[in-house]
This record gives sequence, structure tokens and C-alpha cells, in this order.
Amino acid sequence: MDADARRSLLHEKLVEAAERTIAARGLAALKARDLAREAGCAVGAIYNVFPDLDGLILAVNMRTLALFEAAIAVSGEGAAPSRGSEAEAAVNDLARLALAYLAFAQAHAPRWRALFQHRIASGQVPEWYRAEQGRLFRYIEVPLARLCPDLAGGERTLRARSLFSSTHGIVSLGLDEKLMALPPAALARELEAVVRALGRGLASGPGP
Amino acid sequence: MDADARRSLLHEKLVEAAERTIAARGLAALKARDLAREAGCAVGAIYNVFPDLDGLILAVNMRTLALFEAAIAVSGEGAAPSRGSEAEAAVNDLARLALAYLAFAQAHAPRWRALFQHRIASGQVPEWYRAEQGRLFRYIEVPLARLCPDLAGGERTLRARSLFSSTHGIVSLGLDEKLMALPPAALARELEAVVRALGRGLASGPGP
Repeated sequence: MDADARRSLLHEKLVEAAERTIAARGLAALKARDLAREAGCAVGAIYNVFPDLDGLILAVNMRTLALFEAAIAVSGEGAAPSRGSEAEAAVNDLARLALAYLAFAQAHAPRWRALFQHRIASGQVPEWYRAEQGRLFRYIEVPLARLCPDLAGGERTLRARSLFSSTHGIVSLGLDEKLMALPPAALARELEAVVRALGRGLASGPGP
Repeated sequence: MDADARRSLLHEKLVEAAERTIAARGLAALKARDLAREAGCAVGAIYNVFPDLDGLILAVNMRTLALFEAAIAVSGEGAAPSRGSEAEAAVNDLARLALAYLAFAQAHAPRWRALFQHRIASGQVPEWYRAEQGRLFRYIEVPLARLCPDLAGGERTLRARSLFSSTHGIVSLGLDEKLMALPPAALARELEAVVRALGRGLASGPGP
């Protein structure tokens, strides 16, 4: 095996070890020494493959985003074809996406929290990671475009993000057992009620 | 000065020292040794007054909630009397509350974040703290009752919480410079657009 292949294999082993740790015990459990032991390398060798642990965590977070995207696809397959008006269909899609987000956060709590807990020492998240976030927001932009056909592209991108943020707030506080958690059934009901109201309001009203 | 008076004075000095630290540098900067020095007592004396640092942090967080309640009152004083329908007036009130929350989070970022970062080692937040949170949610319940007069009391309490959570999600991610911050003007515009749409949708639609 040449040096590139060894490097690539170590890269894979390290991401897998970090992913197992974050998925089981969350971001705080991640330690360079443990990762090196699991991947069978010296601690210093990690930094031949990643610039720092932040780079490794971002690689795991990218896998979490991919796992979420797969979950969205599955939620779409099971969905009944929407009847009623264009706006009703779009509201149904927004509700389905929000409930898929809640289900994902419940099923993968530690790695989902890691997406938001992770703070890069050097500053903002890199452009390639932002691009991936942005690509996922497009799942919201599609029904939003059907609800608000008059919203210009840039405004729609911003609004889709805001819809995500409002859903995230309900999911995040609703699952926070040390702060203000709700029972799972009540949380799903509230989330759906708020997202449907938001969708109806966006369809009916003037965008400022 | 008798023992009770000394104890009460130390209580006050410790809360003030902790409040200064959290307001200036956030929760992570809080250290028992620094607090004792600022309050002029031994480190061990802190635990004669508070069961642990969690108790002290909760006392500071209660002051933050009181400061926020004062900010809500000020935002109400400046508001023009609402014209239009009952529902329009209620939507205006919800928008005003959400914008007051954003302004508070911007003006008092470290102590506002401490409300959500603080994790009590022993488990959930105590009942008296929850009661104070619940009291503040009533500011949302009032316009909500005008928007959705058919919503029963318990449902209304839950829905008010969900409206808060959705606002909090937009504010929290929108101010997170390491994740997905928005420029202040865009953030205020998005928040108002979402809250107004949500209000219109709640007024128009069927509660589930």
C-alpha cells in the first residue's frame, strides 16, 4: 500500500471512530487519544490527516447531514399524494419535513446535537460545509415556492432558513430534558400545529 | 450585625458578583474562587449561602428574566394603539414581543445565552424557576387567546410555549456567528415576517 492509500485508509478509520463516539456519547466524549487507539495510530498521526479535531468533527457532521437527507427521502416515499389545492399540498410537505426533523433528532440525539454544539476554534464553519447546509435548505424552498410564488429567490432562501430555525427551536427546546421538554406526542402535535399555521399564514398574507 | 443579616448580605454580594461576571463574560467565566474574592469571603462560605453554584446561577437567571420582563413592558409603552381587527391587534402584539425578545438577546447576549446553556448537575430546573418561566409565557398567552378564542386553557399554554420556541430558534440561530448568523436588519425582518405569518395562520386555521 502506498502513502496515499495508507493516508486515505487512516482518514476513513478516524472518521468512523469519531462517528461511533459522537453517535453514542456526543461531542464532549471525543478525545484524540481514544480516537488514535481505535484507529490504531499515534495521536500525532491524526494531524497528518486532519488539520485539527475540528476538521474531523466537520467530517462526522457531514455524515449526519447525509443521514438526515436519507431520512427525508424515506419520509417522502411513505407520504400519501397530496390532495386539495397547491397551497394545501405545500403545507403538507412542510409539516412532513418538520416531523421528519423531529424524528431524526429523537432517533439520533447525540449526533444531532453535535451539529449545533460544535464551535470551530478558528471561527466560522468552512464554505463547503455551509454549501451542504444550504443544499439541504432547498428541501424547504420547494414547498415554500409553491406557497409564496411572489417571493424572490434571495428572499425565499432566507425565509426557508427561518422556517428551519423556527422548527429547530421547537424541536430543540422540546427535547431539552433539563430545560423545558415536552412528552413526545405533545411535541409532535405542537410542531405540526405551528408549522401548518405558519404555512397557512405564509400562503394567505403579505410578505413584508 | 447578626448571623442572618450577615448571611443575607453575603447572598446579595455573591449574586451581584455572579451577575457581573455572567453579564460581561458569560457562564463559562464563572469560577467559585473569583466569586469569593469579589464578595470578600472564603470559597467555602459560598456553600453556606447556596447549596451549589447551580443555585447561584439560577438566582442570576431569575434576575435576567426580570430584566427581560422590564424590557417587554417598555416595548409595550412605545407601541401605537392597534387599529384594525382584534386578530390584527393580536398579531401586532406577538410581533412586538418577538422583536423585544430579539432586541434583548442582542443587548444582553452573554446573560441571555446563560438562560439556555445552564445545565443543572442534579437534573431538572426547580419548580420555582419553572413557575417564573411559565409566568412570562403568559405575555404570549394573552394575544394568543385573542387569536384563537377556541383554544382551551391547557392547549393555549402549550401553544404559547411553542410560539416562544419558534421565536427562540430564529433568534438563537440568527445570532450564532459560528453557525448561521444573519445581519441584524435581515434577522429582525425575518423574525417579524415569520411571527406575523404564524399569527395569521393561527387566526385563520383549524387547531388540530
